[in-house]
Amino acid sequence: MPTTFPLDPRDPESAIAAAAKRCSNWGRWGADDVLGTLNFLTDDMRARAAALVRRGAAFPLAQSFDMNGPQRGWRRRTNPVHTMLDTGTDAERGTQGFPHGIGGADDVIFMPLQASTQWDGLGHIFDHGQAWNGRRAGDVVTSDGDLVTGIQTATGRISGRGVLLDVGRVLGVDGELPDGFAITAEHLAATIAAQGPTSTVGRGDLLLVRTGRLARARRDGWGEYAGGDSPGLSFTTADWLHSTEVAAVATDTWGFEVRPNEFENAFQPLHQVAIPHIGLFIGEMWDLDALAADCAADGVHEFFLSAEPLPVTGAVGAPVVPIAVK
Amino acid sequence: MPTTFPLDPRDPESAIAAAAKRCSNWGRWGADDVLGTLNFLTDDMRARAAALVRRGAAFPLAQSFDMNGPQRGWRRRTNPVHTMLDTGTDAERGTQGFPHGIGGADDVIFMPLQASTQWDGLGHIFDHGQAWNGRRAGDVVTSDGDLVTGIQTATGRISGRGVLLDVGRVLGVDGELPDGFAITAEHLAATIAAQGPTSTVGRGDLLLVRTGRLARARRDGWGEYAGGDSPGLSFTTADWLHSTEVAAVATDTWGFEVRPNEFENAFQPLHQVAIPHIGLFIGEMWDLDALAADCAADGVHEFFLSAEPLPVTGAVGAPVVPIAVK
Amino acid sequence: MPTTFPLDPRDPESAIAAAAKRCSNWGRWGADDVLGTLNFLTDDMRARAAALVRRGAAFPLAQSFDMNGPQRGWRRRTNPVHTMLDTGTDAERGTQGFPHGIGGADDVIFMPLQASTQWDGLGHIFDHGQAWNGRRAGDVVTSDGDLVTGIQTATGRISGRGVLLDVGRVLGVDGELPDGFAITAEHLAATIAAQGPTSTVGRGDLLLVRTGRLARARRDGWGEYAGGDSPGLSFTTADWLHSTEVAAVATDTWGFEVRPNEFENAFQPLHQVAIPHIGLFIGEMWDLDALAADCAADGVHEFFLSAEPLPVTGAVGAPVVPIAVK
Amino acid sequence: MPTTFPLDPRDPESAIAAAAKRCSNWGRWGADDVLGTLNFLTDDMRARAAALVRRGAAFPLAQSFDMNGPQRGWRRRTNPVHTMLDTGTDAERGTQGFPHGIGGADDVIFMPLQASTQWDGLGHIFDHGQAWNGRRAGDVVTSDGDLVTGIQTATGRISGRGVLLDVGRVLGVDGELPDGFAITAEHLAATIAAQGPTSTVGRGDLLLVRTGRLARARRDGWGEYAGGDSPGLSFTTADWLHSTEVAAVATDTWGFEVRPNEFENAFQPLHQVAIPHIGLFIGEMWDLDALAADCAADGVHEFFLSAEPLPVTGAVGAPVVPIAVK
Repeated sequence: MPTTFPLDPRDPESAIAAAAKRCSNWGRWGADDVLGTLNFLTDDMRARAAALVRRGAAFPLAQSFDMNGPQRGWRRRTNPVHTMLDTGTDAERGTQGFPHGIGGADDVIFMPLQASTQWDGLGHIFDHGQAWNGRRAGDVVTSDGDLVTGIQTATGRISGRGVLLDVGRVLGVDGELPDGFAITAEHLAATIAAQGPTSTVGRGDLLLVRTGRLARARRDGWGEYAGGDSPGLSFTTADWLHSTEVAAVATDTWGFEVRPNEFENAFQPLHQVAIPHIGLFIGEMWDLDALAADCAADGVHEFFLSAEPLPVTGAVGAPVVPIAVK
Repeated sequence: MPTTFPLDPRDPESAIAAAAKRCSNWGRWGADDVLGTLNFLTDDMRARAAALVRRGAAFPLAQSFDMNGPQRGWRRRTNPVHTMLDTGTDAERGTQGFPHGIGGADDVIFMPLQASTQWDGLGHIFDHGQAWNGRRAGDVVTSDGDLVTGIQTATGRISGRGVLLDVGRVLGVDGELPDGFAITAEHLAATIAAQGPTSTVGRGDLLLVRTGRLARARRDGWGEYAGGDSPGLSFTTADWLHSTEVAAVATDTWGFEVRPNEFENAFQPLHQVAIPHIGLFIGEMWDLDALAADCAADGVHEFFLSAEPLPVTGAVGAPVVPIAVK
Repeated sequence: MPTTFPLDPRDPESAIAAAAKRCSNWGRWGADDVLGTLNFLTDDMRARAAALVRRGAAFPLAQSFDMNGPQRGWRRRTNPVHTMLDTGTDAERGTQGFPHGIGGADDVIFMPLQASTQWDGLGHIFDHGQAWNGRRAGDVVTSDGDLVTGIQTATGRISGRGVLLDVGRVLGVDGELPDGFAITAEHLAATIAAQGPTSTVGRGDLLLVRTGRLARARRDGWGEYAGGDSPGLSFTTADWLHSTEVAAVATDTWGFEVRPNEFENAFQPLHQVAIPHIGLFIGEMWDLDALAADCAADGVHEFFLSAEPLPVTGAVGAPVVPIAVK
Repeated sequence: MPTTFPLDPRDPESAIAAAAKRCSNWGRWGADDVLGTLNFLTDDMRARAAALVRRGAAFPLAQSFDMNGPQRGWRRRTNPVHTMLDTGTDAERGTQGFPHGIGGADDVIFMPLQASTQWDGLGHIFDHGQAWNGRRAGDVVTSDGDLVTGIQTATGRISGRGVLLDVGRVLGVDGELPDGFAITAEHLAATIAAQGPTSTVGRGDLLLVRTGRLARARRDGWGEYAGGDSPGLSFTTADWLHSTEVAAVATDTWGFEVRPNEFENAFQPLHQVAIPHIGLFIGEMWDLDALAADCAADGVHEFFLSAEPLPVTGAVGAPVVPIAVK
């Protein structure tokens, strides 16, 4: 299938600038806006989404948070390190000093906020020193964190209608797209057509795009899952993402967009349009496989989805425990 | 009002042993069970809970995660420390070395898993060296974490009917109970009666009990919020919690139960019955104030509640971002 | 005693600018220099310092690193949090899975690098956006750390002749100066005179100034030790520190200089001259009491001192375990 | 060369038990002892060691502490993660809010205490549930850390005569021993003989054994440096280490002893004798190359060595910044 418009692989700068101009939502929700595309998701939509629940089956979409994750240290992103402050062994041994036989266990974690299943916040990516809504990057995110669009401002806003586009299952082999497969608007349309009427995507939806990349990592080992080659959204989907007015979009990959990226000497060019210009919330490393199997089985690809980010004050991204209910 | 049965404040051991015997759920769901009272919450109940949604109004019930929290270092529980791996200032300054003008910000967190709004897992508390379902504490929680009932086993199981008992509003002054106020089964019944028919509590429900303690801390400063005096559930509610067969219960306090505890020289005796014997999931430091105001305004105290714990493998407790939808 | 020159307490800017101009060492050791005053300390001096050792008595000058430290969370500086990865309890219980009866314990730490006894690196303080030797602050210290003067460049350079000026003992009451006491060059000279010929201070020396502030904290509790009122060096000692050509200077206080600072609305003005302009290494929170008692007893105030900073790559400060040998 | 006595590679248990019996120092310094072999190092020895200093040349022996280290996550041992609390970029940008143009940078670290150059404390290794001096492991090291022999008890005791045995240079090829090379007492004796009279090893010495393994890692990349194959001390050196009465011993390898270990299905058997039974302090991952080159050049293999562990309260191991002065 053709991509939406031709890309010159040698000129990411121009392509990004043009897409940013076409897709910009700056000022759309006022100068003080911190929510971007989450503005599309209204209470009415949330109420209709809840009405999609039939069986009450719940599908958690988070990967686990532990040392067995995909991180390999790039830019100091380690896997989560979980240690105990108190243990059952100590309690049983009687070393804790509590009265009347009570014992306890407690624990602590050290982790990059984007170590596992996560939302990118609006302060995560900048374009030429500019953040969402035209702010200067240095006015938004300092060493004190994101002073304006910290992820906690989004908490309470990301529950609504989820819709799964299982591109891996519709267009892949054995449910998986190959690494380097750039998912275009045409591929998304074909998936919607194949899946049927519960798959329509529109304003305020929380879109989940499954590539099968996590299924491959689960089978073959993490390998280059974090930062290596992967299927993902084509740069050319920026316009589609903008025009559909989805509230957020998440995938089962490390980096959301196709890797290698579609330009020579480029790094995550779709992020550069989607986050600072569209104001789009992007989810990464979601585990969509069990949900996808259920959707394939019953033919229903829409559901109530709650995916509220951990409200770490000033964070530019956050762990999330998405739950889909059908 | 009288408490359910008389307590001898000098003998917590006997009271705990007796309550543990009366309320034990050991073996109820098989020898391998890791879910405890979450077994009460079925898909059918979850579907009926989703049908409670009318307006689509969402109420996030998590406190923020930052250095301005209530922790004071007890047993090495600090407030969360959030630091940046990359900043907007750097991106704007051009120090990051990325191509085509893209810049990024990333971050990391160090925090006790029970630093802010959280679930206690079933491996959090032991009774005389025994954990939930009769396991030896040292067989469950070592320095490697909770090898059996790690909080990740609960993720995906805690979305259902939430019901708020606003004891602070019904029985307190200006919506707040005083420190040391022990909420008994009679107080809970009175609150249900006062709030009306949407407040019934039964099998599989996710019960929220508001005391007003967080409202007081919000107004007056944290002070002794973490570990100091507080209203909370009476030890005598163990039987009520057991017989109502709620799936979980959460409060707006640090420690769930009344403090000072009702025995001399005691420490959290209700935990010692509720977690290892009832297998009950306990939520602490939830922010119920906005939800409570809405419930008071429309008279509806039931809602869809999703409160899935962050699936940190082997954790004995976990941050949670509960979201109530009415 | 009069201070060296009059200060206008309402005009820190001018005083700092003038002192910076008088005391600047920019360019003194070339444009690429990263060592500042450590350049004064030569191998010959180190050899002579080793020759000061007589008895072989060793005095460790580090405070402990633990949760019982002075930090109170200012700018996210917590006390060190130490947790175990494995324990003896587990080893004894047999849960570790090692062969032939071997068991192990391991641990991990999370700490601000200036949580306890430490050196300030040359990237710790800036004057109007300029770092040591005239570099722009943003060219030196980004989110990736100190790319130029990282503390690891100093490791291996800070062993030499130590000399203790026990101002607390000479000029204080019961060995302690009161909070707010500004130690001037005259006070230092008086202390040298009182202590005798082993107390001369000159080029390449590692100067230790004892105020007694830590002794007070040890007796009365940390209180405001971190960031509150304290005796310390007067702003007016900048010229003395510059002209004596000491290699480094450390004190038993949190902040090295007197607090409250000697200007209205000021924050650590001596740092602003000493670090970026003099290129001086400053040590803080050193425990000088046992050493001071020994010096008072035998009248010898000079010794071999090794105080090498932990070489954390890119750090702007670092823990140190200073050891004085007499 | 023959090893000191024959080993049955199928029976580590018996060999360890026999060596432990032959080499035990339990009770040698009283029931309350926490220092083990550090008792051998007296003030007199320290004074004589200082007299070894001739030129004043200082050799820091610590590897750097950063993400480029050898750790690969085994038992949650990560490389150190260093993050900034404040930066020069922010200071230059003017976002910090300090008066009179002062700006600052601060930082924080998360690291396993044995991530880089380190001492093993006496609570690091147990033999059949017993710790140094015959204590029960669970009485010594709980989740609260090492309550008895915490590494802080050793701080101030590890400065004295260092002696380098450069086995790699004497017996290896191009200064390096191959992986799996088990250094025996005969190899050590041959090295002493080859190096000459400054290399004698005796009571209270701080012994450094260079294998060349770090030089190989520096040239070829970390690879399996952490936990993989390596030259190192033979299990059979336990008796030599015991009888020489050295105060401590350190190497340039991850694990001190030869790997693969000399028994089938074994894990660090020499540790199991050396730490709990001899009470020996073991240093690992020391960078001996520059010092070794100097010793080879001038033929002097003894020096003053200060290697005081970071006094993390209750730690079972600690970072150290050893400094050798010749």
